[in-house]
Amino acid sequence: MLLKGAPVAAAINEKTRARVEALKAGGVLPVLAILRVGENEADMSYEKGAVKRCSSLGIGVKNVLLPADVSEAELLSKVDELNRDGAVHGVLILRPLPRHIDDARVRDALSPAKDVDGITEGSLAGVFTGSGRGFCPCTAESCVRILDHYGIDCAGLRAVVLGRSLVIGKPVSQLLLRKNATVTVCHTRTRDLSSETRRADLIVAAVGRAGTLTAEHVSPGQIVIDVGVNVGADGKLRGDADFSAIEPIVGSITPVPGGVGAVTTAVLAEHVVRAAEMFDNHSQT
Amino acid sequence: MLLKGAPVAAAINEKTRARVEALKAGGVLPVLAILRVGENEADMSYEKGAVKRCSSLGIGVKNVLLPADVSEAELLSKVDELNRDGAVHGVLILRPLPRHIDDARVRDALSPAKDVDGITEGSLAGVFTGSGRGFCPCTAESCVRILDHYGIDCAGLRAVVLGRSLVIGKPVSQLLLRKNATVTVCHTRTRDLSSETRRADLIVAAVGRAGTLTAEHVSPGQIVIDVGVNVGADGKLRGDADFSAIEPIVGSITPVPGGVGAVTTAVLAEHVVRAAEMFDNHSQT
Repeated sequence: MLLKGAPVAAAINEKTRARVEALKAGGVLPVLAILRVGENEADMSYEKGAVKRCSSLGIGVKNVLLPADVSEAELLSKVDELNRDGAVHGVLILRPLPRHIDDARVRDALSPAKDVDGITEGSLAGVFTGSGRGFCPCTAESCVRILDHYGIDCAGLRAVVLGRSLVIGKPVSQLLLRKNATVTVCHTRTRDLSSETRRADLIVAAVGRAGTLTAEHVSPGQIVIDVGVNVGADGKLRGDADFSAIEPIVGSITPVPGGVGAVTTAVLAEHVVRAAEMFDNHSQT
Repeated sequence: MLLKGAPVAAAINEKTRARVEALKAGGVLPVLAILRVGENEADMSYEKGAVKRCSSLGIGVKNVLLPADVSEAELLSKVDELNRDGAVHGVLILRPLPRHIDDARVRDALSPAKDVDGITEGSLAGVFTGSGRGFCPCTAESCVRILDHYGIDCAGLRAVVLGRSLVIGKPVSQLLLRKNATVTVCHTRTRDLSSETRRADLIVAAVGRAGTLTAEHVSPGQIVIDVGVNVGADGKLRGDADFSAIEPIVGSITPVPGGVGAVTTAVLAEHVVRAAEMFDNHSQT
């Protein structure tokens, strides 16, 4: 079975649209600021998708562009300005940032209340402790939203997560643990990857390298969530999984493109609306 | 091999003692405040151990006792007082707190800079992200300090953690991941526990129930870290592991008592000294 992202995104968007209408009826226009440094192609592509999604849902977008050679101080001052801007509810900072900028310092500067892509320590603490504070990184959340949508109950499942990044691997492992899966996190230092993945019920591949998951790594009936977005020599997008080899073996798999990536901006938009709702509630008390 | 805690604690204490002397030479007496609510026997026993450890290392202790029926407001106000007290560098709040008190609210009230037992979201975020901020919960850290002391390199090891609490299971899984182990977190909803534990190189049992780990769960050569502290009907302490059955099978195991528990207060004292050093540096800038 192909776990397509589009129906998942559509279901999320339908609810988001209603919430946007409710906010507008109350006089609040939810707004996402997108902060981009330089003209990186991947950034511009993601930005384009986010703008399109927000617009179609009635969410306002404020594009903030800074040159690739912007100083760290200028960037931090821009983040601070967005933190204070009462008309902005969520801020998406496109990363990775240029090398001369301290990524951790920029993340720290962002107000947790506007951290709709879960990059601050405050948001990540909420993901780890389950306190419900902050926002989960959108891509990590998209993985479990796909499972939810297709009625996959994770309780008791053996889940194997490939990758331990703060953007995907670590947060998705926490979300799966909260859903009562038995979770194994694998990475570059894992000795025998295929012996881990073959015994899994659910594999989440978030390595960022095409060909990480081959036919040797999978078993019949498995669920595979492929988070990888890799551009091949032919210019085509590929996931971490060798799709054509794996798809006939496993039980269900997300395609790339059209899987996890198709859900991410829907989750982002939903986060912006949640941020606006919280801001609205907070203003009224 | 028996992985005894005492030599680990002794090695930690030796370094801590030198740091205490250095602080005192600079005019700073490191002080731990221990906040206890009521007369719970386990709390009083842990407090006694912490006081003894601190005293032997030259660390000051400020005991704060509140009645079991203290109001949440009074408790919060006491925490606030300790946060502001420039002569107190670390605060240990003995938990679990009485049921009428909101544990999360109390944790939130504690200043992250004084959170020497890693109970705040700020400390837990640091454990999750590896940012180095805050303090790791002492018991979780003690597990890896034992591994370090006995020269056990975790890189590439299959580590299976039993339990997903914020006090031990979750933080220790992050510490092991940072040490490049392949980490699996098991819990009450894990379907076939013994099939997970038998294939592990390293097992950390942090469930809090005697008899969780039996001969059926282990394999020759394994390393077992037993975090459980369970009081039997005979009044004796037992770990989560059935020690007498397991010890002849596995390669090495921590005893209970005399294993992880023997290291905890050494780590706590070290954290107090680190907090005092940071406070000192901060005061001087």
